[in-house]
Amino acid sequence: RSRLVMIAGHRLFNAVIIGLILLNAVLIGLETYPALYNSYREFFIGADRILLWLFTIEIIIRLIAASSIKQFFKEPWNVFDFIIVLSGHLIAGGHYVTVLRILRVLRVLRTISVIPSLRKIVNALLMTIPSMGTILLLLGIFFYIYGVIGTMLYASIAPEYFGSLHSSLLTLFQVVTLESWASGVMRPILEEDPTSWWYFVTFVLIGTFVIFNLFVGVVVNNVEE
Amino acid sequence: RSRLVMIAGHRLFNAVIIGLILLNAVLIGLETYPALYNSYREFFIGADRILLWLFTIEIIIRLIAASSIKQFFKEPWNVFDFIIVLSGHLIAGGHYVTVLRILRVLRVLRTISVIPSLRKIVNALLMTIPSMGTILLLLGIFFYIYGVIGTMLYASIAPEYFGSLHSSLLTLFQVVTLESWASGVMRPILEEDPTSWWYFVTFVLIGTFVIFNLFVGVVVNNVEE
Amino acid sequence: RSRLVMIAGHRLFNAVIIGLILLNAVLIGLETYPALYNSYREFFIGADRILLWLFTIEIIIRLIAASSIKQFFKEPWNVFDFIIVLSGHLIAGGHYVTVLRILRVLRVLRTISVIPSLRKIVNALLMTIPSMGTILLLLGIFFYIYGVIGTMLYASIAPEYFGSLHSSLLTLFQVVTLESWASGVMRPILEEDPTSWWYFVTFVLIGTFVIFNLFVGVVVNNVEE
Amino acid sequence: RSRLVMIAGHRLFNAVIIGLILLNAVLIGLETYPALYNSYREFFIGADRILLWLFTIEIIIRLIAASSIKQFFKEPWNVFDFIIVLSGHLIAGGHYVTVLRILRVLRVLRTISVIPSLRKIVNALLMTIPSMGTILLLLGIFFYIYGVIGTMLYASIAPEYFGSLHSSLLTLFQVVTLESWASGVMRPILEEDPTSWWYFVTFVLIGTFVIFNLFVGVVVNNVEE
Ligand code: NA
Ligand code: NA
Repeated sequence: RSRLVMIAGHRLFNAVIIGLILLNAVLIGLETYPALYNSYREFFIGADRILLWLFTIEIIIRLIAASSIKQFFKEPWNVFDFIIVLSGHLIAGGHYVTVLRILRVLRVLRTISVIPSLRKIVNALLMTIPSMGTILLLLGIFFYIYGVIGTMLYASIAPEYFGSLHSSLLTLFQVVTLESWASGVMRPILEEDPTSWWYFVTFVLIGTFVIFNLFVGVVVNNVEE
Repeated sequence: RSRLVMIAGHRLFNAVIIGLILLNAVLIGLETYPALYNSYREFFIGADRILLWLFTIEIIIRLIAASSIKQFFKEPWNVFDFIIVLSGHLIAGGHYVTVLRILRVLRVLRTISVIPSLRKIVNALLMTIPSMGTILLLLGIFFYIYGVIGTMLYASIAPEYFGSLHSSLLTLFQVVTLESWASGVMRPILEEDPTSWWYFVTFVLIGTFVIFNLFVGVVVNNVEE
Repeated sequence: RSRLVMIAGHRLFNAVIIGLILLNAVLIGLETYPALYNSYREFFIGADRILLWLFTIEIIIRLIAASSIKQFFKEPWNVFDFIIVLSGHLIAGGHYVTVLRILRVLRVLRTISVIPSLRKIVNALLMTIPSMGTILLLLGIFFYIYGVIGTMLYASIAPEYFGSLHSSLLTLFQVVTLESWASGVMRPILEEDPTSWWYFVTFVLIGTFVIFNLFVGVVVNNVEE
Repeated sequence: RSRLVMIAGHRLFNAVIIGLILLNAVLIGLETYPALYNSYREFFIGADRILLWLFTIEIIIRLIAASSIKQFFKEPWNVFDFIIVLSGHLIAGGHYVTVLRILRVLRVLRTISVIPSLRKIVNALLMTIPSMGTILLLLGIFFYIYGVIGTMLYASIAPEYFGSLHSSLLTLFQVVTLESWASGVMRPILEEDPTSWWYFVTFVLIGTFVIFNLFVGVVVNNVEE
């Protein structure tokens, strides 16, 4: 075990793993080109199987090298690595080809868990989410109210945008990013219902104001730290 | 009365009210699906009536529990709750179905008055508005001048955008959000009047600059506090 | 003269002038509605003439009340007021109807010179411009280089966007505001010249980065003060 | 040599060079107008040749005036000047007309190396890039994963946007600038695959959040300095 501890802690071990993840990433990228994939199908499938087993060995080495199994799974990034690799085995023979392929792409995310500086920055980004909790709740209420009102008022005028509550919420997300909110969404509705401008103008004003304040909060938090 | 004071101050009382508001929100959301609403119409109308009465009882309990009626209405959120619930009774039997339905949706806003952390954040957001007063006035003057000039110059070229002062103001709001300002609004006008670019370019430059400074002011204010 | 000094310094004097400017603004707004203007043409023209003379008297009072003419014109806002009112007299009988009408709209800008808090905020906004000098020069060079290259490469592919140097510069301004830069400008060109993506992607990256830094500079300046 | 040192350090020397670069810039701009270029072709070609030689003499003077050749090339801006001028000679007679013309436009960039305040600001801008290293790497991983998934899922539905990995990456860059991400890219795909909204909504949310944090980092860095 002490030998595995030494291996797992060695700089070369990490470097090799990073190299394998990058190789995995390149292979996955190349596979998206049908001409290439169809010509070297056997090679891609073989390489993927080998890489999966190498990653499995890596996890096992790190698991044994850890002071205890509990300690190992305390670190969320280890849990993440474990799930990514395990799911590769579980679904390997299954029928859910798309799910399987997406899972394989997600292996590239392991770059984050393996490179310490990336891990640190992602941890920092995730840490800012709880501090946004209340304002996100407020944003949710605001979206829900406008979503229900929008569905009530414009479901028959613009069914592609406000046909149901969930499509209204998607439309409102589009509107809050200011993407074609006027030319695409508001103006056609305005032709049927000339008073509908208040709905969109107030939504844009309140929405961008709240989101702006959400961002200001994050900046201020960051500056304080 | 002392018993009502105890009830109104109890954690469970608030939790039940939050639960009822959420139930109300879910019901309002489900009602937007016509298939569901038409099948369970009686149920939705009944549940709504019961909820309205429960909210009425809640307001009465809190009103009696307050040290004085004056004290109760001093808090703007109580006034808000009172109006929302009262208007539910006043318009209940009326003909203004759309107004009534929107009012019922606005009941979801009571989440804010009932959850203290939300109330605090909304109060904070509302508090930033007065500090933006002068710059909003400046923005208003700027919009008005460009609105009048736009109507004068482009009413006949692009009636759908600059046909009247109010539609010009709406178009300028669209332009300041940078939504299709060039592809949708400026380029068709440019084909008729090749000198019109100065109108849009100066408006975009000044408009975004002033709004940016509006936001900087809010950030600086926030950082200082 | 001492009486005029008293009048010019009186709160009521300023209040009356603000009132007249607002009246002027409302009249100019109403004039944009053709139905209204054609019915009350005489009234609008008369009111405008009276207002112009009232503003002339105002300027004269303030000119005489000033310690010296030199002192009066030292304040840029007084120069602005003077020019606005004088030009109203000079072009009044002329043929340049559109110029005249725009000049009359610009009278609304006098709200800024008359309300001290607005004057202060506009002064502050104008003050930030010199500190942006160098970065604006950099932005100019950057736009010019991309404008020349764009005209060289895409003048024949997309004449409506890159037909000449000045239309290229307008297109680049549209692109830097991110308005339809891909769907409207890049994608049609991409179909003819599949390598053109580097032109747009680098322009968007560098352009938004420089403008972002321009804004950061203004914020940092503001925070320091 | 001491005389050249004096010349190279003289204010007039720099002023003349700035003047020549501006002249060069104006000529390049005028050349983009075909009518003008075809009429004065000889003149433009002659002026360009003279300017290239003047810049060559300038570089030689500054090279000789420098304490040593090594010292001269230590300053990256000198290397930049040297390459720009040298390449003008190397490709002058070649067949790559477009490359040659773009190179000539890039001479305008020498304004930056010649005006100290511009040089300082560009140095400052370039200096912020390394501090963004890790988060740019994260952004790269994020783009790559979404690019591969997008190609896998939507290559057949929307070949113009997700036909291959590189066009997917270009589309994702468009989406992250929020340009027509819904109206142009998502909605047509949504009609074929109603579950595709999660792909775009999560990409927009994560993408803008990471880029926002990238910018916050730059601001905080700037404020600290
Ligand atoms: Na946009
Ligand atoms: Na757009």
